[in-house]
Amino acid sequence: MKDCCTLAVDAMGGDAGVGVTVPGARMALERHPDLRVLLYGDSATLKPLLAEFPRALRQRVEVRHADVAIRMDEKPSQALRKGRRVSSMWLAIEAVREGEAQAAVSAGNTGALMAMSLFVLKPMTGIKRPAIAGLWPTMRGQSIVLDLGATIGADAEQLVDYAIMGEAMARSLLHVEQPSVGLLNVGVEEIKGVEEVRRAGRILREAALPIHYHGFVEGDDIAKGTVDVFVTEGFTGNIALKTAEGTARQVADFLRRELTASWWTKLGALLARGALRNLKKKLDPRESNGGIFLGLNGIVVKSHGGTDALGFANALTHAREVALYDLVENIARDLSAKKMMADFLDTRQENGAQQAAPARNAG
Amino acid sequence: MKDCCTLAVDAMGGDAGVGVTVPGARMALERHPDLRVLLYGDSATLKPLLAEFPRALRQRVEVRHADVAIRMDEKPSQALRKGRRVSSMWLAIEAVREGEAQAAVSAGNTGALMAMSLFVLKPMTGIKRPAIAGLWPTMRGQSIVLDLGATIGADAEQLVDYAIMGEAMARSLLHVEQPSVGLLNVGVEEIKGVEEVRRAGRILREAALPIHYHGFVEGDDIAKGTVDVFVTEGFTGNIALKTAEGTARQVADFLRRELTASWWTKLGALLARGALRNLKKKLDPRESNGGIFLGLNGIVVKSHGGTDALGFANALTHAREVALYDLVENIARDLSAKKMMADFLDTRQENGAQQAAPARNAG
Repeated sequence: MKDCCTLAVDAMGGDAGVGVTVPGARMALERHPDLRVLLYGDSATLKPLLAEFPRALRQRVEVRHADVAIRMDEKPSQALRKGRRVSSMWLAIEAVREGEAQAAVSAGNTGALMAMSLFVLKPMTGIKRPAIAGLWPTMRGQSIVLDLGATIGADAEQLVDYAIMGEAMARSLLHVEQPSVGLLNVGVEEIKGVEEVRRAGRILREAALPIHYHGFVEGDDIAKGTVDVFVTEGFTGNIALKTAEGTARQVADFLRRELTASWWTKLGALLARGALRNLKKKLDPRESNGGIFLGLNGIVVKSHGGTDALGFANALTHAREVALYDLVENIARDLSAKKMMADFLDTRQENGAQQAAPARNAG
Repeated sequence: MKDCCTLAVDAMGGDAGVGVTVPGARMALERHPDLRVLLYGDSATLKPLLAEFPRALRQRVEVRHADVAIRMDEKPSQALRKGRRVSSMWLAIEAVREGEAQAAVSAGNTGALMAMSLFVLKPMTGIKRPAIAGLWPTMRGQSIVLDLGATIGADAEQLVDYAIMGEAMARSLLHVEQPSVGLLNVGVEEIKGVEEVRRAGRILREAALPIHYHGFVEGDDIAKGTVDVFVTEGFTGNIALKTAEGTARQVADFLRRELTASWWTKLGALLARGALRNLKKKLDPRESNGGIFLGLNGIVVKSHGGTDALGFANALTHAREVALYDLVENIARDLSAKKMMADFLDTRQENGAQQAAPARNAG
């Protein structure tokens, strides 16, 4: 049980626990014949559920018992105290560190999952804080947005790290060879954004990193899919994500109310039901389920806590794709290129400053 | 030409200039028989356009010549140099300071308009930086969101000021007696948001201001209309606004594409056209056009630069409503109540600290 792809699944996480994670894992196994799953949780609960799987699928699952399940409302500190080395969440992450699995997937509580991931996997060299990256449906297809709320108040260097990590993820998940990267900013003339965002823009423009940097983008560019990767700080990213989800639901709700208002509109909706079904599928948050923790020495995917089996299976599919691509190794290589470039630029800047000094005196 | 309501209109602002502002002003005059308009701009251009108005409307308009029009792409500093005392934008704002008009309306560039408004009207006592507040369509009706991008990086005291100003605006524009106020925050457990947002929450909870403070809200609460007033810092507010606008357009675009995919869906769309028309109206950004500058000694309303006559007329309607309500006086009263309360709390805290000291030693 090595090679690609073995996923370590926290079977006890999420609002519905095994009721969603087990059928979700089954769907993913059916989809991907190369997939193996380590299922962490209460074995007395899991074994009977697994017995219902067809034999061919069952052979690709291994149940690993965990005494403790982390609750959805537990604080990260509580979760760490109670769940260290014994919870399904911890053990699934540990399987990634030990090389037994290429990624861990959990629908458990985000705070606990991030705390344990940091504790077990540790941040990559040169990364201060991790980010959560998500797929975002756009008019052009899909884009990646990060950080969706792992870290609050990123400085310019962190934003550049997010750009590097998001770009690598876009290559793996969106299959774009040279993904474009934009920095979220505000368009109002007199302010032109936060100092750190402007500084990050300068670094991305001047550092000659192997990244296709597009420039600043605004909130409405996300829906347009103007770039493949949208980079922003976690507070703004989290609020933008939830605002968009809310707006999509709001428009769908308006539409439903209007279409059931009269017999004519109901008949119209009946005739156009294929179109409405397609629209629903396009807006389905389950399609893009699975926030990916970037910046750790290993991949952890956070599924939405309230998703169903299909949504959870999609999180496993996304985990498999980033695992296939060796995302962590790719990011590490890009980060060391950045480091070299930054050192080079620092040197050049110092020389430049020395040369500039006499000129200023002369002026 | 005193009393309510006289609006000073920058006729030269916006992408289409007089082609939108003049018919927009006309629509507003038709709507509101109590409305008078001071029309600032090139009188040689404006007078012939005005000659086409019915006489009864024409009597409620006064053209005031301005030599200079501020361009949409001018920087605030350029605009100030070139437009001070002579531009239509400047003169419209000045009419508010002089008490000739109760509010100024411009579709001109936001940066220049904010710079001139600050220069001419000055911030209210106790207000560090102004905010831009906007109406936002929700599932429950309408809410107010601020700051939409006037100021970047508000501290706790500024967020509390926004809460006070937004609450007064909700009373005037939404006609809610006791509007509820929420602070935008992220829901992720381990971070619980920016320190300044948490501090603002503490002040709003403990200061016993005459405000119905609901607590923290998240991005998806905006579409739900969970509270009447959403308070956030300008960078996040601007990105949330544009993300929502983009998402609404995206969903409408998906719907349009799907409904034109086959003859069946086209027929369905034809039968349901009343419903689709209503949906379009509900999502129409012209309905909520007009960002209101709050925190200045006078009201300035920023219309979207690319709107049409209907959108511009709506901005005038919103300006009239806040003028009718004496928004500035109401905000000033609330701010001084806050000041008193804050002083009282400061004193109490100091006393409390002294009393607590021996207890701590004893413990």
